[in-house]
Amino acid sequence: MLSPLLQNLIQALRVLPGVGPKSAQRMAFYLLQRNVDGGKQLSEVLADALENIGQCQQCHTLTEADLCGICSNPRRDQSVLCVVGSPADLLAIEQSGSYQGLYFQLTGHLSPIDGIGPEEIGIDALMELVARKPVEEVILANNPTVEGEATAYYIANLLAEQSIKLTRIAHGIPMGGELEYVDGGTLTHAFNGRQQFK
Amino acid sequence: MLSPLLQNLIQALRVLPGVGPKSAQRMAFYLLQRNVDGGKQLSEVLADALENIGQCQQCHTLTEADLCGICSNPRRDQSVLCVVGSPADLLAIEQSGSYQGLYFQLTGHLSPIDGIGPEEIGIDALMELVARKPVEEVILANNPTVEGEATAYYIANLLAEQSIKLTRIAHGIPMGGELEYVDGGTLTHAFNGRQQFK
Ligand SMILES: [Zn+2]
Ligand SMILES: [Zn+2]
Repeated sequence: MLSPLLQNLIQALRVLPGVGPKSAQRMAFYLLQRNVDGGKQLSEVLADALENIGQCQQCHTLTEADLCGICSNPRRDQSVLCVVGSPADLLAIEQSGSYQGLYFQLTGHLSPIDGIGPEEIGIDALMELVARKPVEEVILANNPTVEGEATAYYIANLLAEQSIKLTRIAHGIPMGGELEYVDGGTLTHAFNGRQQFK
Repeated sequence: MLSPLLQNLIQALRVLPGVGPKSAQRMAFYLLQRNVDGGKQLSEVLADALENIGQCQQCHTLTEADLCGICSNPRRDQSVLCVVGSPADLLAIEQSGSYQGLYFQLTGHLSPIDGIGPEEIGIDALMELVARKPVEEVILANNPTVEGEATAYYIANLLAEQSIKLTRIAHGIPMGGELEYVDGGTLTHAFNGRQQFK
């Protein structure tokens, strides 16, 4: 039937999210028969990326540099810090063009049941950053899901004692929705309509 | 925004069929943040496969060996040869368990408009194989599409002078459909109901 190496390739392609057995098969045949150069390119870039991409030392987003393009850009507003839960959320906000400040990217959300506490998602590093930078406002842009809300409240409690304005993006994002999939207009609305965190 | 290497990775993932910008982004973030080992495995297996998988010397299907598992299996019926248009079609027939003979896998279908003639899809090698082997029946299992039918007729014409039984799988496969997506039962039906090629 299928050769061992071909079976291995189909299996390996299934690590990709959303790729089932049929898609993996189709991808393998396509690369081997019709796009060997594209496949080689993918193999090389993937190895390079996994080897060299790590966290930005300041905001924890994905980058191969010590500091990402946003953290190293002096024209970004250093007095506002937006907390997001993933690189996809950060990218969605950047693409909306509605925000000019800095970010801090958590690694997901608090989930005590899965043993994911504040340190695992980077909240300690967030606190260090807030203490070190002249931050006047922290915008909590965690997803409006149960875990996102819980994470936002946890951070809000930690910052409550400090004289920092604490806001939460609010209007326009449907409850239970994922920030990553919201259009730019809605995100702009959510930023402009942000409310004091209670 | 996204680092150059991250952008390269997302671009490289888009060579995969069915993967648009959003999926590629999701795949890149997933591999970098949550499955580095799976990503490394994919990179390595992909390089290995692209380097080592070629055509079976006899039937032209994908394999890293000189002869594929079917061609090198002496228990397969050497007197019947089934012509298919892709490795996916060959696999679908094998998985149906309805066929015990040999295969010849064409590289797609004839398409004079795109400059794809008999040699490009391996028809010359098919003729050599038929001349060399004690083949008594050739089953034309090309897809029942316009190009597949044209390819089947072309092969039938070449073999018409020889004392070889020429059949075409027929019943059960919807016209315009793709063999790869037909269930095993339907394929079994199509094999059993095959007709003399006119
Ligand atoms: Zn950064
Ligand atoms: Zn073979």
